[in-house]
Amino acid sequence: MKTILILGAGLSSNMLIHYFIERAAKLNIKIRVGDKSHATAAAKTENCPQCSAFEFDIYNDIQCNKEVAKADLVISMLPARMHPLVARACIKHGRNMITASYAGSEIKEMDFEARKNGIVIMNECGVDPGIDHMSAMQMINNIGAKGYEMIAFESSTGGLVAPGFENNPWQYKFTWNPRNVVLAGQDGARFLHNGKFKYIPYHKLFNRTETIHVPGLGEFEVYGNRDSLTYRDTYKLHHLETMFRGTIRRPGFCEAWNIFVQLGATDDSYVMEDTENMTCREFINSFMAYRVDIPVEEKLSLYLGIPLNSSMMGRLQWLGIFEDTKIGKPGLTPAKVLQTILEKKWSLESGDKDMIVMQHQFDYMDGELRKKIYSTMTHIGKDSYNTAMAATVGLPVAITARLILEGKINLKGVHLPVIPEVYEPVLKELEQLGIRFVEEEVVIPRDISSV
Amino acid sequence: MKTILILGAGLSSNMLIHYFIERAAKLNIKIRVGDKSHATAAAKTENCPQCSAFEFDIYNDIQCNKEVAKADLVISMLPARMHPLVARACIKHGRNMITASYAGSEIKEMDFEARKNGIVIMNECGVDPGIDHMSAMQMINNIGAKGYEMIAFESSTGGLVAPGFENNPWQYKFTWNPRNVVLAGQDGARFLHNGKFKYIPYHKLFNRTETIHVPGLGEFEVYGNRDSLTYRDTYKLHHLETMFRGTIRRPGFCEAWNIFVQLGATDDSYVMEDTENMTCREFINSFMAYRVDIPVEEKLSLYLGIPLNSSMMGRLQWLGIFEDTKIGKPGLTPAKVLQTILEKKWSLESGDKDMIVMQHQFDYMDGELRKKIYSTMTHIGKDSYNTAMAATVGLPVAITARLILEGKINLKGVHLPVIPEVYEPVLKELEQLGIRFVEEEVVIPRDISSV
Repeated sequence: MKTILILGAGLSSNMLIHYFIERAAKLNIKIRVGDKSHATAAAKTENCPQCSAFEFDIYNDIQCNKEVAKADLVISMLPARMHPLVARACIKHGRNMITASYAGSEIKEMDFEARKNGIVIMNECGVDPGIDHMSAMQMINNIGAKGYEMIAFESSTGGLVAPGFENNPWQYKFTWNPRNVVLAGQDGARFLHNGKFKYIPYHKLFNRTETIHVPGLGEFEVYGNRDSLTYRDTYKLHHLETMFRGTIRRPGFCEAWNIFVQLGATDDSYVMEDTENMTCREFINSFMAYRVDIPVEEKLSLYLGIPLNSSMMGRLQWLGIFEDTKIGKPGLTPAKVLQTILEKKWSLESGDKDMIVMQHQFDYMDGELRKKIYSTMTHIGKDSYNTAMAATVGLPVAITARLILEGKINLKGVHLPVIPEVYEPVLKELEQLGIRFVEEEVVIPRDISSV
Repeated sequence: MKTILILGAGLSSNMLIHYFIERAAKLNIKIRVGDKSHATAAAKTENCPQCSAFEFDIYNDIQCNKEVAKADLVISMLPARMHPLVARACIKHGRNMITASYAGSEIKEMDFEARKNGIVIMNECGVDPGIDHMSAMQMINNIGAKGYEMIAFESSTGGLVAPGFENNPWQYKFTWNPRNVVLAGQDGARFLHNGKFKYIPYHKLFNRTETIHVPGLGEFEVYGNRDSLTYRDTYKLHHLETMFRGTIRRPGFCEAWNIFVQLGATDDSYVMEDTENMTCREFINSFMAYRVDIPVEEKLSLYLGIPLNSSMMGRLQWLGIFEDTKIGKPGLTPAKVLQTILEKKWSLESGDKDMIVMQHQFDYMDGELRKKIYSTMTHIGKDSYNTAMAATVGLPVAITARLILEGKINLKGVHLPVIPEVYEPVLKELEQLGIRFVEEEVVIPRDISSV
């Protein structure tokens, strides 16, 4: 009987835990779920005789080592910065490890030790990063196998509310970690467009959007997602003219969100004065010059060039940012004040459903013809517990973990799921579980110089 | 016979070293000057029998400890990040230490140990920080001693070219560390204006300038300098309505510099692709969207809303940023590429003179009258070796060091020069050396609500 250790029992772990509970008897496994809150871990393992839930403190080195030593495989769904602590214990005790997070430099540097101790540390096995890598790599390898030459690769993902539930002026709600939404994009974007390297700083990111069309859902907007250039190595695509990764939002979101970016309201680098007694209106006003002859709304309109009766201004007003409501919490950064305001308005209501949208575009040469494949995945959550986010993050992690546990993946060292041995079986099972891509191919003119 | 150890022999150390050479016999001291370049240290100590110059490597812990142990007093003119290494050696060997840099948290945390070992670590003894603290604190204490209540404090400093030498469209040249000029302002600004806390992010800093008038020199513009709010503690001014520190530039500089900020060309957080073969024109183009139907100049004009025939565009053109000249150095960040371009144009030519301008404004209540004191210091360099920067940074450091060496300052622990025991004698001697403030007092209407 083998033991799976799952660390972190937040929203993203719902479907992951459920996957193993459903298969516990068949797989002959015990499932140990640790979370900083015992109640959270316990709630997700109720009525499961093979499960045990416990309070877990990642900074308790003794507990971490004890738990890892007892397990046959470790899944870390903790915040990314905590993975190195788990990884060190996994290397020490020779246990395989899976995460849904970007492999940071600290993790990457553990490759040699992981190999030496005969374990795999498999990162980026969620949705983005995760399913994006797997599905992109499958298509890239298929195109290569036919002898075609890839020219351009663009890939975008968004966590959104499902159609019918986008019932606020932003057509947006928090379907994952609100803090990450507020801080998204702060590293700017770097990519390759028609042979030219392009760099966008954070304060221009939300005003440099592209439009994509998603079959059955219509138009969305996309802003650049961090450093796309590193994926030339990851995907072994060194001769592309275009390489772009982006984040998907509904039309109009970015221009309104950009107001907060322009003001400096998403800054997380310093603590504001007396946020306990500050009102929403004072918060917004603090980013604009002193001036008492006109109201704050008009100041904002003049400062950022936003008409007073525009939809952007309507979105701000709906959030209540011009109201005299107190923030009521001390010691916050601007980003945390903004998060506090947004959480009152953007939280999923009971009955709301979320949606994940992912679209890849692959351009390649078939003889003299330039062809483009659109490969699109949309997945709608069942309810506010079994969300699309929980499914698309948790299930690929779960499947990868099961394959490793069963010895069907035999890699050693630090890896991403860009290897056929990993992505082929995972994508196949995801498809059986309802997470699938739809493809469309078109022939496009050779000269697509977008202007 | 006592020994003074001076670490770092760059431009800012010129006058400091000269000060001690001139007084070496009278003070009965030996002067040891260490620099990463032996030649630099040697050039500045030529023909001085009391001096010795040597190659100094701050990361050589043995050398650092040996040199500190041999000295009676240590002056660190090294880059600020290196001060903690020097400070640790000073604590270990019980040697007093003086710097011209901001006291970072690492230095501040050494207060207890410094006291325990009976030494003073005196920071921020240059011009800004340095003379600004001393002169402001003297006036604030004078106003307080008369029983008046301070209402507002604004203080700005700029390192500029002297009148007659501002012979380029920017009216600016590098008179100190070019890298610091390129990175200036990246922390944004936080201050207090008429009772309201104000926060400006970096990307808005250069478009939120104020104008000041300097007697005899005319108008200058000022942008906010980091966190002015911390000076409420430093200066013990807790009931002010306005507290602002700024950086002075000639009119028109900030709006043109802002173009680089908006583009993202001052970013120092990532390395660009192939900067060796990149041209200036490609550098600028890389921050704008792909588009081949119009020239780069026109793209920039449209992107940032800058008329093609404006003075801003003229400033850019004069820098050569639209030319096909290669950068020629590999592995650079945007900030370093920009610095490379600017250094060709903004370097001081032989015969050029620099200038330091500092202006404080103190508002206080004298009964029912609101009064404002303008206190202004302008200092022009003698030549490109004896610059105003070298004088105003080096001389207050030198004087403070001499006073400590002679036992006339007897503080222990980590300090700034905001104590009368320090600033009174230093300001007095600076005045004898030609660095002095001119004051003007006006009565202003009670309600100055600037709009």
